[in-house]
Amino acid sequence: MSSSFFRQIDPPQRMLMGPGPINAHPRVLRAMSADMLGQFDPEMTEYMNETMALYRQIFMTQNQWTFLVDGTARAGIEAALVSLVEPGDKILLVRAGRFGLLLSEIAERIGATICSLDLPWGEVATLAQIEDALKTHKPKVFACIHGDTSTTMAQPLDGVGALCRKYGVLSYTDVTATLGGMPVRTDAWGIDVVSGGLQKCMAGPPGSAPITISDRAAEHIMARRHVEAGIRAEGVHNGSRARILSNYFDLAMVMDYWSEKRLNHHTEATTMLYGAREAARIALEEGLEARFARHVQASSCLIAGLRAMNLRLFGNDAHRMSNVTGIWIPDGVDGEAIRTRMRDDFGIEIGTAFGPLAGRVWRIGTMGYNAVKHKVLLTLGALEACLAAQGHALPRGAAVDAALADWP
Amino acid sequence: MSSSFFRQIDPPQRMLMGPGPINAHPRVLRAMSADMLGQFDPEMTEYMNETMALYRQIFMTQNQWTFLVDGTARAGIEAALVSLVEPGDKILLVRAGRFGLLLSEIAERIGATICSLDLPWGEVATLAQIEDALKTHKPKVFACIHGDTSTTMAQPLDGVGALCRKYGVLSYTDVTATLGGMPVRTDAWGIDVVSGGLQKCMAGPPGSAPITISDRAAEHIMARRHVEAGIRAEGVHNGSRARILSNYFDLAMVMDYWSEKRLNHHTEATTMLYGAREAARIALEEGLEARFARHVQASSCLIAGLRAMNLRLFGNDAHRMSNVTGIWIPDGVDGEAIRTRMRDDFGIEIGTAFGPLAGRVWRIGTMGYNAVKHKVLLTLGALEACLAAQGHALPRGAAVDAALADWP
Repeated sequence: MSSSFFRQIDPPQRMLMGPGPINAHPRVLRAMSADMLGQFDPEMTEYMNETMALYRQIFMTQNQWTFLVDGTARAGIEAALVSLVEPGDKILLVRAGRFGLLLSEIAERIGATICSLDLPWGEVATLAQIEDALKTHKPKVFACIHGDTSTTMAQPLDGVGALCRKYGVLSYTDVTATLGGMPVRTDAWGIDVVSGGLQKCMAGPPGSAPITISDRAAEHIMARRHVEAGIRAEGVHNGSRARILSNYFDLAMVMDYWSEKRLNHHTEATTMLYGAREAARIALEEGLEARFARHVQASSCLIAGLRAMNLRLFGNDAHRMSNVTGIWIPDGVDGEAIRTRMRDDFGIEIGTAFGPLAGRVWRIGTMGYNAVKHKVLLTLGALEACLAAQGHALPRGAAVDAALADWP
Repeated sequence: MSSSFFRQIDPPQRMLMGPGPINAHPRVLRAMSADMLGQFDPEMTEYMNETMALYRQIFMTQNQWTFLVDGTARAGIEAALVSLVEPGDKILLVRAGRFGLLLSEIAERIGATICSLDLPWGEVATLAQIEDALKTHKPKVFACIHGDTSTTMAQPLDGVGALCRKYGVLSYTDVTATLGGMPVRTDAWGIDVVSGGLQKCMAGPPGSAPITISDRAAEHIMARRHVEAGIRAEGVHNGSRARILSNYFDLAMVMDYWSEKRLNHHTEATTMLYGAREAARIALEEGLEARFARHVQASSCLIAGLRAMNLRLFGNDAHRMSNVTGIWIPDGVDGEAIRTRMRDDFGIEIGTAFGPLAGRVWRIGTMGYNAVKHKVLLTLGALEACLAAQGHALPRGAAVDAALADWP
């Protein structure tokens, strides 16, 4: 074989302790090696239905409309916003980190009128702030990020859906970084549309975006339905409202495809569906509450170790995500050199940061398949050694001892 | 384990002889079982660069900008059109099948002014027709489908790029159904943007859309660049033209991510990239010309068998795709009952049709991993038996004999 075709895939072993993607559960990858089925094969549509049922449990919802968008997590965000928001509609966004800004960016491109609740990176919005903003701006849609990995903060969502309903507002939340790792209580929160990804606490690869949609949001989206000329069928009518600006992200058509109508839209990404289905099975076998507790324990253990090394955490202690932790890079330490040594000498990846925190903060994830004791301990020990090798003074051995005491 | 979590993935064995998806090459699926890498890990970005180099060969181009869009094939189409076409721009489309209509559908949603060259399903446009339409409409962009599986016709593209350049028009072609199976001569044709998929002649799973972009098209797209607020970096400037309507499909940002700038956009779908890379390696090891010849031989063999059974082919003989063949369902035959028996008794899937051909035409694919002698012979034998079981009169044994004579 000519060298111009390159060697076969054989990635180096990495322990991915950044903000994601993280290592996939091997069962997910094995499930993905099953062969294709035709997209309307009864076995394939049964797998689609089972995937819907599994993700209803993952999203803790009764929503009929619970399925996959075929793209990475941000494909799910864009599908939700472009299907909910018409040009000129007013949308209220919480912007307290990079991914809040992403919501804004997507909504601007749709032609929405943006109203925002802007907060310093590292803070979250209170219910009172959200209610004030809803009253002031009277938006059609409210959108926020649950766990914004750029700040490592989790926006509290209890009561947010009820507030939105009180003011007649549709609500959307991105849970890419929390799904399967922190409670995502779709129905209890009353959030209308929630979308996520696989590559963080779900322990799958990036490339599929699970989404769930309340009946009232689905009704709104279906009013924008516009079936492609090439596949129009009897009994399927176009809606009365403005056509959705994207074909690929037209959730009305995607719902027709995932419904018993099986109106062809895209060709479902079979292999990613196999992976998404297996990731959900693994999470549900463990039990969601046990899984959330494991993430809390892993991040508590990590934090105990970091503090024992005299490292200072970034952000508001009261609202920390339990699956990724921000750390101020100490004065005089070259953060990127530490990350490189962690990777090259220890095979461990930790994360850098974006925007105002770039070069100032590291982010260490404890997500999904990697939210386990031994990986947290190994990461702490490696970080200590790398800091010491740069001449940074710190109490040797303290981090791992403290972590072991925290997770006995 | 509770039954509510369903059994593990274990699809029935199917020989997928429809218009795609078809069976994936096992090496592709095995490559996809490799574990994750961080998205900016040097090994990961090297895999991205290698994937670019491999797809330059697959697309027969020198285009620097040759990479993957993270979604199914229609994600590639939408990314190309939304990045090239601004609201109000005039686009000229060839509409001679379902996927030509899809181009129209996507362009309408972008707010383009649509001009079209409309042809009966089963026909293709001549160079003279295209030139007339370019002169009449003076569009900014010309777009067509190379192989439209809905009609099984291949649009000739020799000279089309040159014509478009003569009239100062940017050109786009979708090659989802032909990439890796029929010649896609991007540079020889002079087409500016070409996008495809993996699930047909590339013998991979659906979920990744390879794309290639000429320098002049890239310059046009880069003039629409608008970097996200959360990741703006020094030396990366916004362009002067209208912002692209989609964030996910903003090819300017996707190019920044695939360039040495490595500006974060989405998280690259690692597993799909592994699969796309392996699918390209396999195709190039076989050799593209040998691969095209294999597809021609497989479809010739199929056609010899179909004709020996007295079945009538759909469409224009001169422009048949060499990887999918349309067949008129004979009068008195229940086409869906045949397809069901093919699947249930023989484990073979053949395709139905869309729109005006629904219920009147079957489509049999000879694509990628399935464009091989034994699968064509087995399909013909099974089809004969299913037709005979419905009481349809035909010369028994003739199809397989004729096919064997064609591919000795």
